[in-house]
Amino acid sequence: MNNNSIKSVKTVAFQGEKGAYSEEAAILFFGPSIETKPYKSLPEVFKAVEEKHVDNGIVPAENSLEGSVNQTYDLLLSSELKVSGEVILRVSHCLIANKEMSLDSIKTVYSHPQALAQCRNFLSNLNCDLIPTYDTAGSVKMIKEKKLMDSCAIASERAAKIYKMSILAKGIEDDKNNYTRFFILSKNDSPYTGKDKTSIIFSTKNVPGALYSALREFAIRRINLTKIESRPTRITPWEYNFYLDFEGHRSEKKCKKALEGLGKKASFVKILGSYPKWS
Amino acid sequence: MNNNSIKSVKTVAFQGEKGAYSEEAAILFFGPSIETKPYKSLPEVFKAVEEKHVDNGIVPAENSLEGSVNQTYDLLLSSELKVSGEVILRVSHCLIANKEMSLDSIKTVYSHPQALAQCRNFLSNLNCDLIPTYDTAGSVKMIKEKKLMDSCAIASERAAKIYKMSILAKGIEDDKNNYTRFFILSKNDSPYTGKDKTSIIFSTKNVPGALYSALREFAIRRINLTKIESRPTRITPWEYNFYLDFEGHRSEKKCKKALEGLGKKASFVKILGSYPKWS
Repeated sequence: MNNNSIKSVKTVAFQGEKGAYSEEAAILFFGPSIETKPYKSLPEVFKAVEEKHVDNGIVPAENSLEGSVNQTYDLLLSSELKVSGEVILRVSHCLIANKEMSLDSIKTVYSHPQALAQCRNFLSNLNCDLIPTYDTAGSVKMIKEKKLMDSCAIASERAAKIYKMSILAKGIEDDKNNYTRFFILSKNDSPYTGKDKTSIIFSTKNVPGALYSALREFAIRRINLTKIESRPTRITPWEYNFYLDFEGHRSEKKCKKALEGLGKKASFVKILGSYPKWS
Repeated sequence: MNNNSIKSVKTVAFQGEKGAYSEEAAILFFGPSIETKPYKSLPEVFKAVEEKHVDNGIVPAENSLEGSVNQTYDLLLSSELKVSGEVILRVSHCLIANKEMSLDSIKTVYSHPQALAQCRNFLSNLNCDLIPTYDTAGSVKMIKEKKLMDSCAIASERAAKIYKMSILAKGIEDDKNNYTRFFILSKNDSPYTGKDKTSIIFSTKNVPGALYSALREFAIRRINLTKIESRPTRITPWEYNFYLDFEGHRSEKKCKKALEGLGKKASFVKILGSYPKWS
């Protein structure tokens, strides 16, 4: 039974408070008519989709400056969920307060450590305390609820609007090449469109040339790799799983052949899913 | 002029407060007679070695559960310093307080977010607030200085001894496969010993098979890769540098040939250094 046939509104789980960048990415991908549901942690987002409390989930996969979101990749390894889409969001930070105030009078700035780090140059001119928190939008909510009048939070413009707060400065990130790529989680991946990507996880035997031999399956078929990353297996120290994205759909002949070839060489292969390339 | 010839004690910079795991790793590598110097941040550790305020630096490279320390790899990319050694430390966490107390009476636990995450199962039975901080040993120092009698910190046994604090529980990490690998930073790397590793950074042209072709240089010479990881270039979104460790010294003939071959194919290659394999 397809949930969408009985419910009129698609529901999407995300991690964080209302106004989070993940929620913004979900709206960018699905359009404004979805119902977004906040969850405290990434494992809870996975669980919400697995237990069908929502139709889809959205999770951050990698940031163009910071690299991969390790927890997401570790959860994808153990979950039966599929990646059915990707969406890339330009991340632009705002300095947000309860009311208009001069930048000199700010005593404290709250935000996620990554957001604080991404605004380092801007913040170095402010001479205030920086307090790391678990969430950007959650910091806005907190300074509003606690009525902290000499504090600010760093979060999105959308978070400022949702909590009806003042924006003291926009675009305060040091580097404008700041994009986050999100994965859409579903029970199934997506059908062939002609402009697809596929994400897989595999591990090799620990012998010289093992990774080279695995990549040969893609190279001889001229399949373009868009990402490769190693992550600890968490079982044996210094043994790695490889996370690979390539262009093409797993149902295409050359991709099928490459995955078959890889299957013969690798200790294990898991296909996370094929999905339309974001553009 | 060699600093060691005038100074009797080797000085080593590390990030964190006295009692940090980095400091413990430095003592494990160099022995107990060194003078360790704490610095607030990893860039300051690099700077201290570059400006010869210390003989060496020690920085965390990767953890067997969490993966690479991104900031270290980004700093290695831009620094002229060499990796002259590696050391692997078993990370075991303690619950530390100002005095003996029952676990029921703990209100708050302070530590680095990674340490809190690594003790998740243990902490879930405590029913207390978890406050992330920038440093494990720094949290011990803080609860001591502020005389927080209903709070604990998570840090090493050594940190508890240094600050003369009580240990309420030992080995509280959920997973015992918890090791951190550190790099020794120096002006020069290490001479050939016969059991060496080499760390490099390179980038490939964005064409199908580019990484495969780069790895060929190692595979055909049966050089074992012990780590490969991609990191965003931070210049162009979704372009990656590869961080590669392989067995062998850069002065060995087959390694020299492989690096020469790689140099012809890659957009850039940087040799971080050759050093004795830790055992």
